[in-house]
Amino acid sequence: MTTPITFAAPHSFLGARAHDRSAGFCVAGVPLDIGTTNRAGARDGPRAIRNAARMLTDGRHPVSGADPTALDLSDLGEFDIALGDIQKSLAMIEEQATGLAHLLAFGGEHGVTLALLRALTKRLGEPVGLLHIDAHLDTSEDNFGQRFAHGAVFWHAITEGLVDPRRMVQIGIRSPAWPEMFEWTRAQGVTILSAQDVHQSPIASVIAQARGVLGTGPCYLSFDIDGLDPAFAPGTGTPEIGGLASWQAQAILRGMAGIDFRGADIVEVAPAYDVAEITALAAATMGWEYLCLLAGKK
Amino acid sequence: MTTPITFAAPHSFLGARAHDRSAGFCVAGVPLDIGTTNRAGARDGPRAIRNAARMLTDGRHPVSGADPTALDLSDLGEFDIALGDIQKSLAMIEEQATGLAHLLAFGGEHGVTLALLRALTKRLGEPVGLLHIDAHLDTSEDNFGQRFAHGAVFWHAITEGLVDPRRMVQIGIRSPAWPEMFEWTRAQGVTILSAQDVHQSPIASVIAQARGVLGTGPCYLSFDIDGLDPAFAPGTGTPEIGGLASWQAQAILRGMAGIDFRGADIVEVAPAYDVAEITALAAATMGWEYLCLLAGKK
Amino acid sequence: MTTPITFAAPHSFLGARAHDRSAGFCVAGVPLDIGTTNRAGARDGPRAIRNAARMLTDGRHPVSGADPTALDLSDLGEFDIALGDIQKSLAMIEEQATGLAHLLAFGGEHGVTLALLRALTKRLGEPVGLLHIDAHLDTSEDNFGQRFAHGAVFWHAITEGLVDPRRMVQIGIRSPAWPEMFEWTRAQGVTILSAQDVHQSPIASVIAQARGVLGTGPCYLSFDIDGLDPAFAPGTGTPEIGGLASWQAQAILRGMAGIDFRGADIVEVAPAYDVAEITALAAATMGWEYLCLLAGKK
Amino acid sequence: MTTPITFAAPHSFLGARAHDRSAGFCVAGVPLDIGTTNRAGARDGPRAIRNAARMLTDGRHPVSGADPTALDLSDLGEFDIALGDIQKSLAMIEEQATGLAHLLAFGGEHGVTLALLRALTKRLGEPVGLLHIDAHLDTSEDNFGQRFAHGAVFWHAITEGLVDPRRMVQIGIRSPAWPEMFEWTRAQGVTILSAQDVHQSPIASVIAQARGVLGTGPCYLSFDIDGLDPAFAPGTGTPEIGGLASWQAQAILRGMAGIDFRGADIVEVAPAYDVAEITALAAATMGWEYLCLLAGKK
Amino acid sequence: MTTPITFAAPHSFLGARAHDRSAGFCVAGVPLDIGTTNRAGARDGPRAIRNAARMLTDGRHPVSGADPTALDLSDLGEFDIALGDIQKSLAMIEEQATGLAHLLAFGGEHGVTLALLRALTKRLGEPVGLLHIDAHLDTSEDNFGQRFAHGAVFWHAITEGLVDPRRMVQIGIRSPAWPEMFEWTRAQGVTILSAQDVHQSPIASVIAQARGVLGTGPCYLSFDIDGLDPAFAPGTGTPEIGGLASWQAQAILRGMAGIDFRGADIVEVAPAYDVAEITALAAATMGWEYLCLLAGKK
Amino acid sequence: MTTPITFAAPHSFLGARAHDRSAGFCVAGVPLDIGTTNRAGARDGPRAIRNAARMLTDGRHPVSGADPTALDLSDLGEFDIALGDIQKSLAMIEEQATGLAHLLAFGGEHGVTLALLRALTKRLGEPVGLLHIDAHLDTSEDNFGQRFAHGAVFWHAITEGLVDPRRMVQIGIRSPAWPEMFEWTRAQGVTILSAQDVHQSPIASVIAQARGVLGTGPCYLSFDIDGLDPAFAPGTGTPEIGGLASWQAQAILRGMAGIDFRGADIVEVAPAYDVAEITALAAATMGWEYLCLLAGKK
Repeated sequence: MTTPITFAAPHSFLGARAHDRSAGFCVAGVPLDIGTTNRAGARDGPRAIRNAARMLTDGRHPVSGADPTALDLSDLGEFDIALGDIQKSLAMIEEQATGLAHLLAFGGEHGVTLALLRALTKRLGEPVGLLHIDAHLDTSEDNFGQRFAHGAVFWHAITEGLVDPRRMVQIGIRSPAWPEMFEWTRAQGVTILSAQDVHQSPIASVIAQARGVLGTGPCYLSFDIDGLDPAFAPGTGTPEIGGLASWQAQAILRGMAGIDFRGADIVEVAPAYDVAEITALAAATMGWEYLCLLAGKK
Repeated sequence: MTTPITFAAPHSFLGARAHDRSAGFCVAGVPLDIGTTNRAGARDGPRAIRNAARMLTDGRHPVSGADPTALDLSDLGEFDIALGDIQKSLAMIEEQATGLAHLLAFGGEHGVTLALLRALTKRLGEPVGLLHIDAHLDTSEDNFGQRFAHGAVFWHAITEGLVDPRRMVQIGIRSPAWPEMFEWTRAQGVTILSAQDVHQSPIASVIAQARGVLGTGPCYLSFDIDGLDPAFAPGTGTPEIGGLASWQAQAILRGMAGIDFRGADIVEVAPAYDVAEITALAAATMGWEYLCLLAGKK
Repeated sequence: MTTPITFAAPHSFLGARAHDRSAGFCVAGVPLDIGTTNRAGARDGPRAIRNAARMLTDGRHPVSGADPTALDLSDLGEFDIALGDIQKSLAMIEEQATGLAHLLAFGGEHGVTLALLRALTKRLGEPVGLLHIDAHLDTSEDNFGQRFAHGAVFWHAITEGLVDPRRMVQIGIRSPAWPEMFEWTRAQGVTILSAQDVHQSPIASVIAQARGVLGTGPCYLSFDIDGLDPAFAPGTGTPEIGGLASWQAQAILRGMAGIDFRGADIVEVAPAYDVAEITALAAATMGWEYLCLLAGKK
Repeated sequence: MTTPITFAAPHSFLGARAHDRSAGFCVAGVPLDIGTTNRAGARDGPRAIRNAARMLTDGRHPVSGADPTALDLSDLGEFDIALGDIQKSLAMIEEQATGLAHLLAFGGEHGVTLALLRALTKRLGEPVGLLHIDAHLDTSEDNFGQRFAHGAVFWHAITEGLVDPRRMVQIGIRSPAWPEMFEWTRAQGVTILSAQDVHQSPIASVIAQARGVLGTGPCYLSFDIDGLDPAFAPGTGTPEIGGLASWQAQAILRGMAGIDFRGADIVEVAPAYDVAEITALAAATMGWEYLCLLAGKK
Repeated sequence: MTTPITFAAPHSFLGARAHDRSAGFCVAGVPLDIGTTNRAGARDGPRAIRNAARMLTDGRHPVSGADPTALDLSDLGEFDIALGDIQKSLAMIEEQATGLAHLLAFGGEHGVTLALLRALTKRLGEPVGLLHIDAHLDTSEDNFGQRFAHGAVFWHAITEGLVDPRRMVQIGIRSPAWPEMFEWTRAQGVTILSAQDVHQSPIASVIAQARGVLGTGPCYLSFDIDGLDPAFAPGTGTPEIGGLASWQAQAILRGMAGIDFRGADIVEVAPAYDVAEITALAAATMGWEYLCLLAGKK
Repeated sequence: MTTPITFAAPHSFLGARAHDRSAGFCVAGVPLDIGTTNRAGARDGPRAIRNAARMLTDGRHPVSGADPTALDLSDLGEFDIALGDIQKSLAMIEEQATGLAHLLAFGGEHGVTLALLRALTKRLGEPVGLLHIDAHLDTSEDNFGQRFAHGAVFWHAITEGLVDPRRMVQIGIRSPAWPEMFEWTRAQGVTILSAQDVHQSPIASVIAQARGVLGTGPCYLSFDIDGLDPAFAPGTGTPEIGGLASWQAQAILRGMAGIDFRGADIVEVAPAYDVAEITALAAATMGWEYLCLLAGKK
């Protein structure tokens, strides 16, 4: 059978088979967005990302030659959440993520990462290293009074011991923030590479620093799409100018060959603010780059 | 001083003075939207409505001649809510609505009406009659598992005795729904005029029916902007085709002269889905029509 | 299991099971759009319509109480077409439509109706009556030199004997057209109700006329979304002002209870020109109204 | 030569020949927009209207059978204006309009009508009757301090004796306005049919009233696109809800057969606020309906 | 009291107190746009910028740690202008800017800078140095016949002695232009750094050159948002491709620490062409970067 | 006569005289788009590009000083195509391109380049060197079963001997692709510079490599707008993230001075997906840069 034309593509990520939790690699959407602090709508991210991914099913990676469709991949569809209830939703997400061999999740708000990391590290029995691409630190203890809002996710992840902060690198940081947050984050051992650092350094140096931090242990990728500049990713809730070009983020991901990733999420795509699907396409492509890394291992 | 040009209008509804809770009439925004079940973003409704209202400050009602800027009017800005927490938000909204003489609130999701009715009826000491314009019954006991989501608001309002269902009329109803909801609603005594009823009847007959139901006691207006057809109000979360034209809704409001309104809300404007501000303008104008009714009393 | 929240709905029309050609009723997308004469993009219609239908899975018809999810329904996904080749595509569509018990197809351009009617009438062994809602006659022998472009579909359907023109009614017609086309069409026996006729008549009279034409034999519904006014359906390729309101088209469909429909298509949704999904929602709802008619038969 | 496909249409209105001021009928754009009081951008109206008209070149009027392309028609392109200078622009527009046999102008803001009427009535030697479709009276003596802003155009036209107010009918009026403006306007003899009047009357009665006012003398059509509801014409600067459906305006124009029109303008299309070209298409079609009236005279 | 959630932010820039002309630093909108030569709508810039700034009130500068909300800051709202009259508007703007200690103005068209510089230099008693970020030279003596259109602003500013051209640097220049304009501008002593120069030089070198030109005297910042590439700032009237990335402009501003700025404007934001608020956010953030420079002085 | 204001610009590219096939340089639109494989709508590219070019008529190149309006230039309007028929369309395009001295064509889909190269090389009597800017190789022998779809254009051009592959350079390549395509393409002698190569090299090095490949023989430029990143060119059918910034593409074109170009095309602009005309402006400006190269020869 020939590949279907892109605009007639099946409704699963990269045409993966549906709903097989026993697959070696799973994709799932996590449409929670009630803890977002500015513009809403990340609930619609997973559907938009799947749809935008229709162009990525035909061909292999242009640089590495990797083919993610060769992975034992299943698309689980959307995880169930509890309408209007953050903590119950986090518990449900954690439960649904438990028992999967390797999960690439599409958000939804960044808060879902907490549930995903809980499920992952419970299985691993140890904290993970973290490649965190974002405009924001997300290490607030309390985000406008809501402890589980999207800006607090890594305060919890570090405090709960899900992430090893000495193996955590944040790239693209640039929003206004409180000095106390920077101090606390650095005090935990986290490495912060601001967007300005990325723009004013050779990309190879950024990659080398990130690899040095992540090391050889098990790692996780958490990619907030607002790590990209709003020109490249307008469809998000808390945009900040001065961000990464999509080629910079791709180069960073491509530079991670050999890092021992055990899971990933790509979050905060809010399609109501997208134009011409470019944000959804960026998120889909970043997911595809991630899977190419995994496929390239073989 | 002359009236400022519309595009230089002050940032309050109809140029009302700011933050005076002792005013005879108050306007406030209620940016809660975490209990919405389809598209998000009603949190941004109040700002968009205020902005769209900039054209309504110059002149009087073209039919009644009423002038709402002559009311003792204050714009309280946005009510505080609790990020990511429906029930705490409802309590905060109720508290902020308490003690006001007369409130016109702009949502936010429809769920906020429950808090507003609690505050109003506590003050009145009796249930109110209700003019409810909407595509949906909103009398679900449980909305996708969330008891306080926007589709359950009038189940609570009736059950808590905030609304007198025999003096409650719903106009514009047309979404798919469960027969049990229709049965329960009608069993309480509520009058339902579907959108089809409105389209196929003279508007004067619709008005007469509504007035008959509302009677002479104290009343409340709850206008879900999705009562309008998506052609007239695309910027909303749960659109349903076949809805009211804006002129029909205006005619109904204009037909309510003499009804004893004690408060109102206009909800579910989601500006991310609006085009050319037409939904926000519809909401702003409906608010202005309501105030013209009040101003016309004198 | 409870109904999933609308924004987490499964990716099939009304949640129908996937790819079962033996189902009593099938839904399929037909993403052909290379014979369109003005704006392109109807290829993306089926995906947009499915997505917009996510709100229609919860509840029953508000007037008839019918429940289309109770039908033995399967969503076949998109039909294969031949890229850049109209006639080969029509042959492929016809082949894929052959053998299905009852098909509701989502276009794609109007030209696909020819293939669908060929498959249907071959099975029935007789021509069908046709309820045709459209801004355009579509009875051009030759459309800008392309015999199988979307404006020629019913010239072929009548000439090939697929449709019985004496049992064919066109509703909503209003585009500029050549007098010869009107003459030819009427000479075949077709009944034409212009948009102006609909706006200036009671809707019950329109329904009665249509029912009279369609009679008791097997019928087909072909609904070009540009039958609706561009205010209600901007997302289409050849919009014409002065069209039907969505409530009028719904009323006409609801008035068809008892007509012996054997298949239907809803075509010409071009999502690139849609706003806030209102065109896709209109198309999805018209498909749902059609299925409610069928479900109501029982 | 065959008609070109619509998307390859020539860049003139209805394919009219370019720049022949001696033609029996001329079309011109008038891109002045610096006297608008809310949203800007009517300068881009003429180009958008010409572009949207590309679908109207193929065929004849579906009801009257008239063919405006049979008129001796030339498209003069855009009139020159003086950047940033209203009064100089009005003088330039008047000069360019002088000497033309019959002009259909596309605005630009409504203020340009003053210049066009000056040129026309100077040639005619008498005031004209006026069919004025609009949401606004436009009879303000002074519009936010600018005597020649778009809201003052008919104060000047009446005061300068360009229009015979007893043969002037305004249809679609509905914006907030000062009672003094209504009083002054009616005192001049002008007939005002509000949008509410149109919605609640048979369209034939509206037509009859308008014809009665216009009488048998020379007349002019001034169609402000905001006479239509924002659902039908979002692309304009001062939208008001509750307006005419496009079919109502078309019916009114079609009802004017035999009225002695000597010129027309269609103004206030602001394409930056348009969606899917529907406003530009409405304006183009209204221009086409007007030319069909003229072509039907023969 | 805690910081309000961003989507419930007060309607003033960074939450500054309203209308206090005696503040140490003032913000004002200047909604003049009638001298723009391509796309209209800069009148709506100030409101959009204020709205987009709602995310900048929480936190400090991520690099310098400066906190602009600590400045003695007031938001004066929109300056009055004269509808449809450039020169009268310039006089009114100058008058309103007179007597303020330090003004950050949001345009509006670039022409307003002339009025702002007149007010500033009259107070200072000397010309200022100018950091001018723009795609265009804006040193035309006459702009399409209008001497005070937006492309002529710095011809006047230099000719009137408001700016010291030897201390004036233009960064981002790239539009088609007449060689005479380049020659005249350079002959006055102005330093021009084209967009190409910026793209092909280290940013530190651009900063050093600009600092060298500006020197130690009093300076002014005039930032035309079209200095940014249309990818980063689509919402403007005269976009030119090949422009600055937002990070480059931010880096230049951050490099200006210690320059003696006495006022600034950010102009030509036309929200009707913006997407997802990214242009308004860029303008708001540039204003915030400017205020951080001032706040960092302490 | 003075230059008209940009928003009143004539409807031809750079104001060129219309329809003179004997001109030294011709511009034409080629609205074919039925062989596109993802999003449709390139048929509307030429009109959008002409419209966006209205700002480029006033002034000269800011770096080279070249003036393309000084060329002997004519705009031929849109080429005729055969609706719904690729091969017939290609034959018609070739015929219309035959006999022209030098053609700059605006697509339309990339498939049209085949017809344009056939016409050009037939006249030249030899293959051309090719500067090909694109995200895709476009050297598929068969594109989803359609041999003349847009992804197969250079397989044909090389196989037919229209292009000398040893003098062909592809810049910006980055889409998923099959390794066999890379191998075949390189085996022909083609030089491939990926987008990643461009981002991680000095632009002067990219220019030098391209010039080395193109050499001194006759050359052709084929610029697929998706060579640019979707942030800079969202309005296209098969976007790929990680692409060129517009300044990079401009720098490459500017670096081609002295290359012996004999024709060019700029293709795949799909305006339905554009925002604020930025894609159309990019295409128009690239065409203008190309003409500046030619004008600069003198």
